[in-house]
Amino acid sequence: MKIGIVGAAGRMGRMLVEVCLETEGADLIGGVDRADHPELGADLGALAGRGEIGAPLGADSEALFAAADVVIDFTFPEATARHGAMAAALGAALVVGTTGLDPDQQRAIDDAARRVAVLQAANYSLGVNLLQGLVAQTAAVLGPEFDIEIVEMHHRHKVDAPSGTALALGRSAAKGRGVDLDRVADKVRDGIVGPRQSGHIGFATLRGGDVVGDHSVIFAGDGERIELTHKASARTVFARGAVQGAMWCAAQRPGLYSMAHVLGFK
Amino acid sequence: MKIGIVGAAGRMGRMLVEVCLETEGADLIGGVDRADHPELGADLGALAGRGEIGAPLGADSEALFAAADVVIDFTFPEATARHGAMAAALGAALVVGTTGLDPDQQRAIDDAARRVAVLQAANYSLGVNLLQGLVAQTAAVLGPEFDIEIVEMHHRHKVDAPSGTALALGRSAAKGRGVDLDRVADKVRDGIVGPRQSGHIGFATLRGGDVVGDHSVIFAGDGERIELTHKASARTVFARGAVQGAMWCAAQRPGLYSMAHVLGFK
Amino acid sequence: MKIGIVGAAGRMGRMLVEVCLETEGADLIGGVDRADHPELGADLGALAGRGEIGAPLGADSEALFAAADVVIDFTFPEATARHGAMAAALGAALVVGTTGLDPDQQRAIDDAARRVAVLQAANYSLGVNLLQGLVAQTAAVLGPEFDIEIVEMHHRHKVDAPSGTALALGRSAAKGRGVDLDRVADKVRDGIVGPRQSGHIGFATLRGGDVVGDHSVIFAGDGERIELTHKASARTVFARGAVQGAMWCAAQRPGLYSMAHVLGFK
Amino acid sequence: MKIGIVGAAGRMGRMLVEVCLETEGADLIGGVDRADHPELGADLGALAGRGEIGAPLGADSEALFAAADVVIDFTFPEATARHGAMAAALGAALVVGTTGLDPDQQRAIDDAARRVAVLQAANYSLGVNLLQGLVAQTAAVLGPEFDIEIVEMHHRHKVDAPSGTALALGRSAAKGRGVDLDRVADKVRDGIVGPRQSGHIGFATLRGGDVVGDHSVIFAGDGERIELTHKASARTVFARGAVQGAMWCAAQRPGLYSMAHVLGFK
Repeated sequence: MKIGIVGAAGRMGRMLVEVCLETEGADLIGGVDRADHPELGADLGALAGRGEIGAPLGADSEALFAAADVVIDFTFPEATARHGAMAAALGAALVVGTTGLDPDQQRAIDDAARRVAVLQAANYSLGVNLLQGLVAQTAAVLGPEFDIEIVEMHHRHKVDAPSGTALALGRSAAKGRGVDLDRVADKVRDGIVGPRQSGHIGFATLRGGDVVGDHSVIFAGDGERIELTHKASARTVFARGAVQGAMWCAAQRPGLYSMAHVLGFK
Repeated sequence: MKIGIVGAAGRMGRMLVEVCLETEGADLIGGVDRADHPELGADLGALAGRGEIGAPLGADSEALFAAADVVIDFTFPEATARHGAMAAALGAALVVGTTGLDPDQQRAIDDAARRVAVLQAANYSLGVNLLQGLVAQTAAVLGPEFDIEIVEMHHRHKVDAPSGTALALGRSAAKGRGVDLDRVADKVRDGIVGPRQSGHIGFATLRGGDVVGDHSVIFAGDGERIELTHKASARTVFARGAVQGAMWCAAQRPGLYSMAHVLGFK
Repeated sequence: MKIGIVGAAGRMGRMLVEVCLETEGADLIGGVDRADHPELGADLGALAGRGEIGAPLGADSEALFAAADVVIDFTFPEATARHGAMAAALGAALVVGTTGLDPDQQRAIDDAARRVAVLQAANYSLGVNLLQGLVAQTAAVLGPEFDIEIVEMHHRHKVDAPSGTALALGRSAAKGRGVDLDRVADKVRDGIVGPRQSGHIGFATLRGGDVVGDHSVIFAGDGERIELTHKASARTVFARGAVQGAMWCAAQRPGLYSMAHVLGFK
Repeated sequence: MKIGIVGAAGRMGRMLVEVCLETEGADLIGGVDRADHPELGADLGALAGRGEIGAPLGADSEALFAAADVVIDFTFPEATARHGAMAAALGAALVVGTTGLDPDQQRAIDDAARRVAVLQAANYSLGVNLLQGLVAQTAAVLGPEFDIEIVEMHHRHKVDAPSGTALALGRSAAKGRGVDLDRVADKVRDGIVGPRQSGHIGFATLRGGDVVGDHSVIFAGDGERIELTHKASARTVFARGAVQGAMWCAAQRPGLYSMAHVLGFK
């Protein structure tokens, strides 16, 4: 499977290069970054902290999309929208890890998905995506006598709370129950707040140290609890999920896919 | 739903009575125990630590099976084999919580299941049964680069290790992977044991205090872990699962069912 | 050690009776409740769900304080203030589990402590009190590069957040660091709240099921975390701590003591 | 504080250089390795993956010990014994992270400690050393009605079980109770093993993924549990503890010290 990487000189790009080099069946055919990048022409393998591989960092995205079976994109919204059009025009599948797309940018991705296979997710770790499926299932099976609580911990630099992944897990739980998360989310508890409301989904946020990301979804009933937990200890898990997704995606018909498809949940 | 209870004066029997009285739609029509039980004739509700309900503890099992839609049986193997025959002859569904049946006794249950619906499980907590399904699924999705470990904690009086439920969870994981647990189970690690063998399933046993039962199944990969946990804090969860199972079972066609059917996993 | 119990017919009083009957060296000499209590004259052992012990529930507090070495009081603030005066006048040590005393009521307790030994705590579980000492020590040893976070879970009926015990743990941590908890407590995180402030102590609150009370204090640094956790699974732990405290207290000189003294932390 | 590093070109040596460069008050004055090391003369900062610092990797240990206030040594037993003699002769404090010293080699360290301050530990993470103190204290306070269990998880490559740190935690617990760990350690539970023996200390071992090292010591009583946990997520914590220990050690009188002294536990 011929894989190309856009934004290949960035922090995530280098990690994607490294993971491609370690993954059997992944044939890294090139990586590009912006035309004025200081490392232009440097060897992709060396940039990723590995030995040289004989493939220099380039700047010609179109040539990359033309040559690749699938391109992985963790860049920024404007670039990703352009890459969507290129993928569709040049027949490469696309893996989108960029977040924060506005409606027009998202439309560019949706349009591309009519012509080629596009995989899009907010979190590419296998574990978190698997957990979302387990949470939805569990929420569908257990009645409202099980209270759902979501607790997460991240490093001290994280600026938003709850994490995007905690909210995604909350949406999975809400979907399993057939309710709208916005109507049942309890994000603040401080002071005399009264007893817990049945059917609500609570969030609790911990921040500290350099924790990459821990998430637990708790289903608390009378006399028993189920806890479904994911702990990430290295950011490489996100790169590995994206590369696995790319290899899956390159073999699919046109359409917009999620990691749940890759994992066989849908 | 007309529910009868055999062994109704025992510790589990009283708990089953109590749960039936608390469960909407569960119509407790009677309970029996052996003919020489000292509490014979006492009110079932009072025996369960609730107010009187006007139903005395009896000793006529056949009348109970004839009148009930479903009978719950947490007694002992010999009695349970006889109850299987009664259920089949008198047309009542049967919920079997008795464990340790020998092959002949199990055959009596299997025979009954050709005539009436029979539900049989080693552990009736909703949570543990749900967890078994989640574990099998997760093991099927994740490759052997995820190491599976099972850790459990029970009270200081428990005599066997690992717990029957830990072994059942191990069988679920092994089934998900298409392997035989007996070939891959690591139950002892002491001294210089060498690196972990890929594909094995490890067990770790903790004992202490009055812990009712905690079980975790850990899937440990590079950079991420998934942990699926059940914590029981009261033995009533087993009674509640059995009563919920009874209400489901009474509406089924003849056959042998597990709690996975009740929960919609099969 | 002669122990008396006031409020002996209440939920906590009955548990205290039960624990006294199980504790070697604890000589339960009587229990009283208010003069119009419907169970007046009933046997204390029977009220506690144990066999009869030949000691009826009485209403004469003064006689109880005169006869006892130590009296345990989990009643209500007005009564506890009166009991403080009785203890001082009649020479009995006093164990105060009542919370919510106003300044005048607290003064009555402080006054009593000049004449007799008085033990006062918000939480009598051995474990939580031990944890408070460990948390203070850990906070004193670790520098501000370790972020302190406190997470607790209680049953769905609890109306306040964070729990009083979580706040007490926070005060222990703040004391260890020589800061004032009110100035550094982060109790709400919702939305874009920016990076964590160094030196702050965060609180996270989970509610659900029938959880008796779990508390964790997390010290998160770069590359390592220490987590100090207490899990209560039965309310009897509070009664056991109070009885152990009573036996210790009855042998002390006058003074106001905390469970930290009982446990040897001060 | 002038710090020197022996074995500075090894994996741990480079990490020690990196941590010194990040630590305020730590003045890295040089690093040496064996005379035939291929990186001899290379810049120490560059070797550690940081910018150049103008200090080349040398091979003259004696000059380093003469110039330094304290030298950190994570090398191998023979070298460490020689370094002990140098430290004593040249007046530098010594931090020993090397393990597996035979009695003669240990004697060289003990001899050095009569002339200079020597810090020696099997595990330099602040957290684990702190935990050992907390565990000893907790074991001393809680009676035998609390069962002590130790569970640890490490990566799949670890060959020994339980981990050295788990055993050290067990010794701390045993010391707190005034018993000998070898007489009370339960390291294997498999099959029908009977009820837990009071006073014993149980060990449970988990292996999987790339877990750096998690340890929990559980004190399980009736109705409550205390769990004291350490989680290491990066090996740098061991280097940081050694550098902090070095800065403390350089200011001490001659003597043999442990990390417990650094942390103020003794």
